[in-house]
Amino acid sequence: MNRHPDFLLNEVNEPQDIKGMSLDELKQLASEMRQLVLERDSAIGGHVGPNLGAMELTIAYHYVFNSPHDKVIWDVSHQSYPHKMLTGRKLGFLDPDHYEDISGFTSPEESNHDFFEIGHTSTSIALAVGMAQARGLLKTGSKDNIVAVIGDGSLSGGLAFEGLNNAAKLNSNLIIVVNDNQMSIDENQGGLYQGLKELRDSDGQAANNIFKFMGLDYRYVKDGNDLRAMIEAFKAVKDIDHPIVLHVNTLKGKGYEPAVEAKMTYHWRAPFDLKTGRDKQAANGESYSAAILAELDKQIAAGEPVVAMNAAIPGVFDLKEFQKKHPDRYFDTGIAEQECISSAVAMAVAGARPVVFQNSTFLQRAYDQLIHDMALNDAPVVMIVRGGAIATESATHQGSFDISMISDLPNIEYLAPTNVEELISMLRWAIKQTDQPVVIRQPEKPLLHGRATQDDYSNIQYDIAHQGSEVAIMAVGDFWKLGEDVRAELKAKLNIDATLINPKSVTGIDPEVLHHLAENHDVVVTLEDGNLSGGFGETIDRYYGPKSMKVLNFGAPREFADNVPLDVLYEWYHLTPKQIVDDVEKVLHAL
Amino acid sequence: MNRHPDFLLNEVNEPQDIKGMSLDELKQLASEMRQLVLERDSAIGGHVGPNLGAMELTIAYHYVFNSPHDKVIWDVSHQSYPHKMLTGRKLGFLDPDHYEDISGFTSPEESNHDFFEIGHTSTSIALAVGMAQARGLLKTGSKDNIVAVIGDGSLSGGLAFEGLNNAAKLNSNLIIVVNDNQMSIDENQGGLYQGLKELRDSDGQAANNIFKFMGLDYRYVKDGNDLRAMIEAFKAVKDIDHPIVLHVNTLKGKGYEPAVEAKMTYHWRAPFDLKTGRDKQAANGESYSAAILAELDKQIAAGEPVVAMNAAIPGVFDLKEFQKKHPDRYFDTGIAEQECISSAVAMAVAGARPVVFQNSTFLQRAYDQLIHDMALNDAPVVMIVRGGAIATESATHQGSFDISMISDLPNIEYLAPTNVEELISMLRWAIKQTDQPVVIRQPEKPLLHGRATQDDYSNIQYDIAHQGSEVAIMAVGDFWKLGEDVRAELKAKLNIDATLINPKSVTGIDPEVLHHLAENHDVVVTLEDGNLSGGFGETIDRYYGPKSMKVLNFGAPREFADNVPLDVLYEWYHLTPKQIVDDVEKVLHAL
Repeated sequence: MNRHPDFLLNEVNEPQDIKGMSLDELKQLASEMRQLVLERDSAIGGHVGPNLGAMELTIAYHYVFNSPHDKVIWDVSHQSYPHKMLTGRKLGFLDPDHYEDISGFTSPEESNHDFFEIGHTSTSIALAVGMAQARGLLKTGSKDNIVAVIGDGSLSGGLAFEGLNNAAKLNSNLIIVVNDNQMSIDENQGGLYQGLKELRDSDGQAANNIFKFMGLDYRYVKDGNDLRAMIEAFKAVKDIDHPIVLHVNTLKGKGYEPAVEAKMTYHWRAPFDLKTGRDKQAANGESYSAAILAELDKQIAAGEPVVAMNAAIPGVFDLKEFQKKHPDRYFDTGIAEQECISSAVAMAVAGARPVVFQNSTFLQRAYDQLIHDMALNDAPVVMIVRGGAIATESATHQGSFDISMISDLPNIEYLAPTNVEELISMLRWAIKQTDQPVVIRQPEKPLLHGRATQDDYSNIQYDIAHQGSEVAIMAVGDFWKLGEDVRAELKAKLNIDATLINPKSVTGIDPEVLHHLAENHDVVVTLEDGNLSGGFGETIDRYYGPKSMKVLNFGAPREFADNVPLDVLYEWYHLTPKQIVDDVEKVLHAL
Repeated sequence: MNRHPDFLLNEVNEPQDIKGMSLDELKQLASEMRQLVLERDSAIGGHVGPNLGAMELTIAYHYVFNSPHDKVIWDVSHQSYPHKMLTGRKLGFLDPDHYEDISGFTSPEESNHDFFEIGHTSTSIALAVGMAQARGLLKTGSKDNIVAVIGDGSLSGGLAFEGLNNAAKLNSNLIIVVNDNQMSIDENQGGLYQGLKELRDSDGQAANNIFKFMGLDYRYVKDGNDLRAMIEAFKAVKDIDHPIVLHVNTLKGKGYEPAVEAKMTYHWRAPFDLKTGRDKQAANGESYSAAILAELDKQIAAGEPVVAMNAAIPGVFDLKEFQKKHPDRYFDTGIAEQECISSAVAMAVAGARPVVFQNSTFLQRAYDQLIHDMALNDAPVVMIVRGGAIATESATHQGSFDISMISDLPNIEYLAPTNVEELISMLRWAIKQTDQPVVIRQPEKPLLHGRATQDDYSNIQYDIAHQGSEVAIMAVGDFWKLGEDVRAELKAKLNIDATLINPKSVTGIDPEVLHHLAENHDVVVTLEDGNLSGGFGETIDRYYGPKSMKVLNFGAPREFADNVPLDVLYEWYHLTPKQIVDDVEKVLHAL
């Protein structure tokens, strides 16, 4: 039910509807929409600060421009909630029953005011350049404005720079709004931000101006949260016949003091109590991240030249505590994933022991650095990867590509621990050895205890946790418990005493174990929490290809899944113990 | 045999040996070394212009600094020939018998004056930052200088910008030499080059300075081919206690007029006649590239909004001719592979029909754009990929990762034509359809004629070119001829009339053909010109995993190969018809 039938926003069905409003009414809209951002985010989680800060910018945009004839591309698009409220999707914010109907990012499926599905940073200028080039070619005759809105944090990503460089070649309309809130996800990193500060401090007048250096026109807005000023600024650049940067100074979290005070906490928040500010779901005591950081402390105490590196996401790995304890050993490259991997490679080659913390989905942005820098130079970088899993998440951030991305490359060992003791054992070895890059897949499911069955992983020995017959289950990493459940179900339904194996690695295989399995097994089942194409299962398929062993692979098909509940996904992908055993039974029957 | 026993260079065994030389002697060295670059490149091919232009810079570097205590990182490292001549590897240039001993890029295996294997652009600053960070941590007490040498062309790659941004955070020695020769591989692209020109035109005095904007110190050298000036400049920055950019103006191709006149031709050249300037090996008449461009001309004539896009490598695809004919439909993003894909995605979404031309090895630099931009948005980009093959090349440019990189992603159709008619048929369909991204793997082996067996590839139908029994050979793309040879060998040696199949696609499978093969075949052989991990063969393995069909995959293992002759590689990888048939025979015997 609409919680706010009295809101002025109810009268807005499309952007057209705000064009007749007075400044006071627009300000009221801003106030209502801020409240809606907070209500929805506190209920289901979401981006807080980026949306609060971009409120006036968004209202002014739709007041001045004619969407979707004029086209706006929101970088990352985590700040697009106000845009959604004004473009026919207000119910997704007014009515808690419809909160989940609306994604957290722009989506052409939701609205013709959105042009791309976007969730990663730094792409908006490149996309806008492409749209402007197409406009030039297709000669629609229309003079539609093309607008990219990019945050100062996103500017540190190399693609943003590539975009600026190519934007300057255009001889037609392109408006690049640099939404400068002096923050990235965490603090901004790098020299760029000194230059931007000088521009702000000089009210945009400083002679040294990176945008002008690159041949772009430039205009500055001192207070991007002043609705009148934003409207005037947009009016001034509308229909401009060349590319221009509109540098807008805004306040991240504007209008909600806790979000202004704690900008990193409120960049994105899980459901929280609006009054107390506390998380609704308390964090668990034990975590894989904490165990990793405790081990790094130990290694540092023992004299190892360990450093922790990340690209703008310290919060994902609880690295702020590490930073406090070891400020000279903490490196955050900002949103610059390529830089993070390449500089880690150099640190490793120079004798330090870099431990890189990265999300699977963002690691995609440094694929060539994995190949050309890390693997080719066989640099002993240690890396912890999170989010390598089949998960309920936005398709923009789907992390299930990691096994194919990493394990198909030469020289890299990609380890998948099944419990915290094994994880730490692997980490300890990874830091100690200097022969090769080692990546460790941090489990995402509730923490399990167990034990490590080797302490040197240079030769992977599969652990046969239970020796049975007929069917052998190879359960990778996070799917260890699924492996145990499948074993139980095979016993219950078919009275099969299946073998259960922990392969530990998704790169190296253990040919001896695989060879001997043939003696008293007919079927091998692989379970991996990731994509099947290019995954671990196919490595096993290839080994058994010329042999008589039957192999069944379970994982995700080659597709995107957008915010699908995990139980639904598992059902779709045949990942419940019952479905798996049914599939095994069919193969056994056909023998 | 040493062709120049009289050269002064013969006295240089390590950089130390030039420190006592007079300016005249150093100039003589430069002259000799230019001659050696030309002699070697004309004999075996190699980078010409980059090495000629960086001659004085390199001699001055080794005259002033103490390598390898001081460390220089050459961006791309295609300009490292002079460096190699001065660091113990002169025989690789003086003696034709030893030309092939020395690779075209820096190599730690060759010399302790090289720190990384490098062949892609824009990485040097990130690597230098990592080395400087490690120096700070490891506190060796030594004040070694760390120097990155990066060309102006490489600066357009986003990673270079990420590097500059992070370099500014250092509080210690780092010298970034921007070797500005006003060229990329082809012409420079983008606004950045206007800014650099203003810096050159003002003798480095312009108030607008991107390097200073980012908080970096800056110094300009007007003539980087003036040995004395370069020595003075290096002396002035040696042991500096903070990061500085040394902006050096040089002439690409300096000292060899043809290379100065035709900078693109002489960026890299295949073996050529030094007197006439002509290629030693004449180009073949027919080429896949020419056929593709002819088809684009047709499509444009027919009114299709086709555009051709590339990232700084028009020469690889003969695109300069296209550019002349269709200047408004030609887009070169410069060295900016991410920008190239993202802007192509936007053009496709906006209704144009972008055809992207990319090398497999450079496409790695836009992996996230393939996933997050192209695949997720299901944008009907058409892409031609070259270099997807097992090849004799530098490991830095190994192109054999493409099938895993592309075919494991959702929504993308990756087609592998076996002959020119099929290639054009696929291209025609790819441009016509607007449902999904389509990538076409351009064959690298001598051109074959044949025919297309379908004209709509939205449902892939494997072509059974020959229906036999017992063994079915699935030969992908460029390995078509190998498939025919294996068929002949199976007949000759085992009297088996094998089935020969063209699968056309490395993504979609044809389940009907695969299902019916089981009726009268025991073994399926897959042949792919690329890596096995994550490749096409494993897709077939997975299909047959639960079935009784035996599958044997042939392709490359998970490793790098550096400049290995193709016949040797094929022998190593069991890719000769005889080896393949031997392997098949073993499986047949075990049945």
